[in-house]
Amino acid sequence: MADIEPFHVMDLLARSRALEAAGQDIVHMEIGEPDFVTPFPIREAAKRALDMGKTHYTPTTGLPALREAISGFYQIEYGVNVAPERIVVTPGASGALLLALGVLVNPGERVLMADPGYPCNRHFARLLEAEAAGVPVGPESDYQLTSALLEQYWTVNTTAVLLASPSNPTGTVVSMDNLADMRSVVAAHGGRLIVDEIYHGLIYDDTINSALSLSDELFVINSFSKYFCMTGWRLGWLVAPIDYVREADKLAQNIFLAAPTISQYAALAAFAPESREILHGYHEAFRQRRDFLLPALRELGFDIPATPAGAFYLYADCTRFTSDSYTFALDVLKKAGVAITPGRDFGANQPERYLRFAYTTSLDRLEEGVARLATYLRSS
Amino acid sequence: MADIEPFHVMDLLARSRALEAAGQDIVHMEIGEPDFVTPFPIREAAKRALDMGKTHYTPTTGLPALREAISGFYQIEYGVNVAPERIVVTPGASGALLLALGVLVNPGERVLMADPGYPCNRHFARLLEAEAAGVPVGPESDYQLTSALLEQYWTVNTTAVLLASPSNPTGTVVSMDNLADMRSVVAAHGGRLIVDEIYHGLIYDDTINSALSLSDELFVINSFSKYFCMTGWRLGWLVAPIDYVREADKLAQNIFLAAPTISQYAALAAFAPESREILHGYHEAFRQRRDFLLPALRELGFDIPATPAGAFYLYADCTRFTSDSYTFALDVLKKAGVAITPGRDFGANQPERYLRFAYTTSLDRLEEGVARLATYLRSS
Repeated sequence: MADIEPFHVMDLLARSRALEAAGQDIVHMEIGEPDFVTPFPIREAAKRALDMGKTHYTPTTGLPALREAISGFYQIEYGVNVAPERIVVTPGASGALLLALGVLVNPGERVLMADPGYPCNRHFARLLEAEAAGVPVGPESDYQLTSALLEQYWTVNTTAVLLASPSNPTGTVVSMDNLADMRSVVAAHGGRLIVDEIYHGLIYDDTINSALSLSDELFVINSFSKYFCMTGWRLGWLVAPIDYVREADKLAQNIFLAAPTISQYAALAAFAPESREILHGYHEAFRQRRDFLLPALRELGFDIPATPAGAFYLYADCTRFTSDSYTFALDVLKKAGVAITPGRDFGANQPERYLRFAYTTSLDRLEEGVARLATYLRSS
Repeated sequence: MADIEPFHVMDLLARSRALEAAGQDIVHMEIGEPDFVTPFPIREAAKRALDMGKTHYTPTTGLPALREAISGFYQIEYGVNVAPERIVVTPGASGALLLALGVLVNPGERVLMADPGYPCNRHFARLLEAEAAGVPVGPESDYQLTSALLEQYWTVNTTAVLLASPSNPTGTVVSMDNLADMRSVVAAHGGRLIVDEIYHGLIYDDTINSALSLSDELFVINSFSKYFCMTGWRLGWLVAPIDYVREADKLAQNIFLAAPTISQYAALAAFAPESREILHGYHEAFRQRRDFLLPALRELGFDIPATPAGAFYLYADCTRFTSDSYTFALDVLKKAGVAITPGRDFGANQPERYLRFAYTTSLDRLEEGVARLATYLRSS
């Protein structure tokens, strides 16, 4: 447990709630979930399931109809064949990651992942007594791993590599070429690639195919939380190579039993045209926000080298203003009423240089936040 | 992973579904969840939350109002003060157990638990690289641990004891005297007691207080699944000593984020009088079923020494008919169309002698099942 850190953003959130309770207005740019409510047709589908009394456990791997629907989503969205039998519905992407690591990694083995990265990934590996090896990445590789880095950091006890594309906290995407190269390196070493695609529906520039288009032999994690705006429903999925599905099922039987039933019935409506139309509108809103916030932060003096193509995060180098992003974030919260996540939540690779800005609030509020930051920076 | 077994009952379930698909009628006495649909007022509360757009994450420890409501439940139901701050809402009891073991147990340490017992308990400990030490228990102690057994099995690396009262698969309850004795023994050794009370709402004879009435220093796991008939909602809770709550919160932040939001809003209505009235009716139905099934199985020749006071299970010694309960269960399924869980799902302590009968189907169907068993036993 001592190796498992809390999210520092939670402390920040607690402080910002305290300030709000004391009457201060806070612009929230620290929150890692969409501000949008789950689309109406999805909520209506949940209500119908409740009326029909769908309150018992589903099979551990998920409702067969939902596994079919997710398979259909890969076909329609990406033109990729993913057999429903390879899809395991899980309680959030957290559940999917725990299954993937659980079936792939033994205690003492090493999982490579980018630093900065989503902190829970590291902690999941620790929970299983594996070693989460953070590979420092920076602007030179768009804050993503590369085949050269994998070669450099591979050791005899390395068994898996975890990528996130788009990434939290950086919003950057792994190109298909880079992905194909990394897949080859991992395969040559007899390891396994796990690709976290939970933000994959939220890419704003070029369209990028799923990693599943490259191979049936890798693991992909996805979720209804981000693109589908279903965070509170706790629903995700794992796509595994077919040989691993029985093991994943067995592990899931023991640690989850099954994903929430109502959430699964609701998610059946997530792929319907009327839901997709609403989600398309949300997607456009996120793009507009990014297109406002990215140049605005650059103009203020934050350094964001490459254009983050996805998710709803900007990872900004703030060394022009401070050598300690944590203290800076606390000061900005207190004096300017703007909440931002300090880099230290995302790893050990120069976190004091960085801040994560989330554009999970309206354009108006983002404008207000930028205006307050401008005033703060002028006066400090 | 190799140490983690699948539920054999799942294979049995798959076979019974195949037989049903081929047109055979199966009496299901293998299913570990209430047959009742979640009470109407709870489902309506979920629908109201959906209309109000309550689809975002809740705090990791749960909705404050739900923690308050659970605290109130302990006060009203048991006359016990449990501060809301000690209650962590979790994705099912599975989540609560993972948190309890996660904050208490280090790799290589030993957790004592009764054998027979719920198999996932063992597997959770294994997942954390701890040792799940099954202590063989039998009819002489109502299939429960005792202070003498704890003394006998305690070792230097033992750090925790997990009890279940009522127990799955045996339905037996730990008496308050036995519980108090065990608490003393565990405390004297500097260990911690975890009490699984997920079936505590389903006790049919004497009322028994929660283990929390004895001490603030033990861990209690509970769930909305069984008594509240909310299996598919994946909602449970952990009561921890106050000093452990921050650690549990930190671990939960990393591995779950939060329990399902809609389920939490629904559960707020679970304690309302109109829900409790419906649940009282379900409770009575379970009691009637037990009061039918227990003497009926004894009359057929199954040996069930003590009267199981709770849950919805009877653990029957079938050595009069077979020396291999697994083969027997398969044969009964095939020839008599009755599905029963073989003992091997519950541990290594003479599982071949035992079968678990679940009374999670109507009295009519239980009668039909018993009649079929009678015919089967006469003809074999």
